[in-house]
Amino acid sequence: MDKATARVEAFSDGVFAIAITLLILEIRIPELHGAAGNQQLLVALLELWPSLVAFLFSFFVILVMWMNHHEFLLWVRTCDYPFLFANGLVLLMVTFVPFPTAVLARYLGTDAGRAAAAFYCATFFCTSLAFGVLFYSVAQRRRLVRDEVPDEAIARVRRAYAIGRVVYAASIALAFWSAMAGLVLCASLWVLWTRLCYASRDAEGSGAARSAA
Amino acid sequence: MDKATARVEAFSDGVFAIAITLLILEIRIPELHGAAGNQQLLVALLELWPSLVAFLFSFFVILVMWMNHHEFLLWVRTCDYPFLFANGLVLLMVTFVPFPTAVLARYLGTDAGRAAAAFYCATFFCTSLAFGVLFYSVAQRRRLVRDEVPDEAIARVRRAYAIGRVVYAASIALAFWSAMAGLVLCASLWVLWTRLCYASRDAEGSGAARSAA
Amino acid sequence: MDKATARVEAFSDGVFAIAITLLILEIRIPELHGAAGNQQLLVALLELWPSLVAFLFSFFVILVMWMNHHEFLLWVRTCDYPFLFANGLVLLMVTFVPFPTAVLARYLGTDAGRAAAAFYCATFFCTSLAFGVLFYSVAQRRRLVRDEVPDEAIARVRRAYAIGRVVYAASIALAFWSAMAGLVLCASLWVLWTRLCYASRDAEGSGAARSAA
Amino acid sequence: MDKATARVEAFSDGVFAIAITLLILEIRIPELHGAAGNQQLLVALLELWPSLVAFLFSFFVILVMWMNHHEFLLWVRTCDYPFLFANGLVLLMVTFVPFPTAVLARYLGTDAGRAAAAFYCATFFCTSLAFGVLFYSVAQRRRLVRDEVPDEAIARVRRAYAIGRVVYAASIALAFWSAMAGLVLCASLWVLWTRLCYASRDAEGSGAARSAA
Repeated sequence: MDKATARVEAFSDGVFAIAITLLILEIRIPELHGAAGNQQLLVALLELWPSLVAFLFSFFVILVMWMNHHEFLLWVRTCDYPFLFANGLVLLMVTFVPFPTAVLARYLGTDAGRAAAAFYCATFFCTSLAFGVLFYSVAQRRRLVRDEVPDEAIARVRRAYAIGRVVYAASIALAFWSAMAGLVLCASLWVLWTRLCYASRDAEGSGAARSAA
Repeated sequence: MDKATARVEAFSDGVFAIAITLLILEIRIPELHGAAGNQQLLVALLELWPSLVAFLFSFFVILVMWMNHHEFLLWVRTCDYPFLFANGLVLLMVTFVPFPTAVLARYLGTDAGRAAAAFYCATFFCTSLAFGVLFYSVAQRRRLVRDEVPDEAIARVRRAYAIGRVVYAASIALAFWSAMAGLVLCASLWVLWTRLCYASRDAEGSGAARSAA
Repeated sequence: MDKATARVEAFSDGVFAIAITLLILEIRIPELHGAAGNQQLLVALLELWPSLVAFLFSFFVILVMWMNHHEFLLWVRTCDYPFLFANGLVLLMVTFVPFPTAVLARYLGTDAGRAAAAFYCATFFCTSLAFGVLFYSVAQRRRLVRDEVPDEAIARVRRAYAIGRVVYAASIALAFWSAMAGLVLCASLWVLWTRLCYASRDAEGSGAARSAA
Repeated sequence: MDKATARVEAFSDGVFAIAITLLILEIRIPELHGAAGNQQLLVALLELWPSLVAFLFSFFVILVMWMNHHEFLLWVRTCDYPFLFANGLVLLMVTFVPFPTAVLARYLGTDAGRAAAAFYCATFFCTSLAFGVLFYSVAQRRRLVRDEVPDEAIARVRRAYAIGRVVYAASIALAFWSAMAGLVLCASLWVLWTRLCYASRDAEGSGAARSAA
């Protein structure tokens, strides 16, 4: 493995791991007044459902993004500045996720719920643009792609990314009509991302499992 | 070592390390008013005992979870999507821990203490379910288990996990009767988890200690 | 690779990754009062532009700092205490960045905007001093420099660092006259840092891309 | 290198890196009221000096602790449960540091300054106890010590740790008399820790610097 790529992976993994863990900081503990008892606390915890929905949603979105990033980097032969900046753009969006998550947690279920959902969906539209730039920086005329990655795999992923951009854009519009409908459309893309088999998977999964540490 | 497993370990380690370090953010510094002196500050620090109990408790719980996760992954030969999602479920619960910890710190010692303790115990019940799914994703018909792991070890761990689920469920009920009793029962499981010898330990511990960096 | 250097890289990468991810915590979600609707939320989000400018600015500054640090460490043959402390000084400045970022986000666009921008530029002046100390600890009489790094590369980087210090100092003065002018001058240095080719890059980039995990 | 030790190092490095980076979150940005201008902001930033002192102090303390932990782990041949728990105890104290730092930042320079300084020094007394347990878990009858570590090195470190404990205890008492005197005595130990040459350093520092990634 190219050493420079290893450090990019390590740095990116760190950013993904931190962003996914910071999400919990956005769930504020309920503040009960006076001599509130056990029942009031349980009710107050249940009333946090928008925070929990936002937390779960964002957790799995970042997890799926990490998996895709992880597999995509297995394609990369070496790294140069355009690739590093494109990767930085993806990480920028990853670190940004806790903010729209907090906005969604705060305003889902209020009169401003549709704007919050649209803002949330818009974040993932921008994320899909960032992934598109990363893809372009690596796969354009196979600049940095390993030899063993077949052209069909590249074409398949390019197509999936293009579809993703359109669906994310549609989910923004949909969220302005119904917050939940927008979020559900946004979520439906997870299925796409987890089905996306980057070709190099098989080659690697079948590798020997001998300890080499 | 399988490369894909290495990155899952690195990502998981990152999440564990961050979650365990974020716990301290939940201890708020005491706010003294007027011309408070040294004595008042010491008293105010002592009055933080519920926060300290919650901090210590959660710290060691995450530490033990990390040790178990760490040793369990030594069993894993390769990784696929079901395993990655099951691992994501465990990490979801790990990142969630700071929230019930903050609730416990805030409400232990108040009239809502039993609800806070039950919520805290319920978190670990869910965590034990997540570990169960991870176990299933790896050990079901030895799908991803390394050849050198004996069947008895798998059976022993499966049994321990089943017991754990029952005890965590009991600790929730118990906490509704007495907050401290529930927490103590919950804590008693640490003994179980630290006694749980995943078979591959011996093989590895006896390995040569030659520098291979 | 020297093992001690590997751990310094890992620790430094961790600090960079965390500092870059913490930036988002400084963007506070807008607090709307009464029965605010979707329109008010969108307006409130747009009014966060100073926070977004500060977030984007600091994100890319830390990213560029990471790239430079990363490439600079490829020069280092081994490590000793002076180097570890000099590296600690750089990390100190990296972890400090979220604070001036928050100050800038809060006061850019207010009457105190020029002081906030000057404080922000002053942070990067101190950062450039810290990088200067790190450079000195490694390159002074080639103390810890690998044999394959040519003298010209060292001279080129030394010159770039010297220019950087002067420009950062100038940006502080400029910010007192115009906040935006100071920030733009500060930003112009990015071009310098991303053009700075540490000589060992080529040698490494051309390395074989065989998997060696 | 023993693989289990490698993961302990990675996890510990993560905790150190996060704790050192979280320190900055304790510096609150100054809140100016009304139409405050540039001058007021600069004055308000200068008035943050207790926060800055606490930040700098804790940053370098954690950095020195990391260096010592790092070198100490080079002695360790393999790892077992007592060692993992002792290491967890050290990490517990590392993650705790941001809290006394925040207390010191808040109350240094107020009437409660001596109690804050004593609490801060007491934290490092507990930390030195934790390092003592870690030392014991590894070096007692050379349980986990590598063969190449000479007995004299072990004796020297044992002596230094014992001195450290006494001096930290003295600094608590001193802080109750004068906050600054206690902090200075506490700081004087840094010199001791950075002078402490763990024997394996030389052997490793002279290793070849060939790239082995």
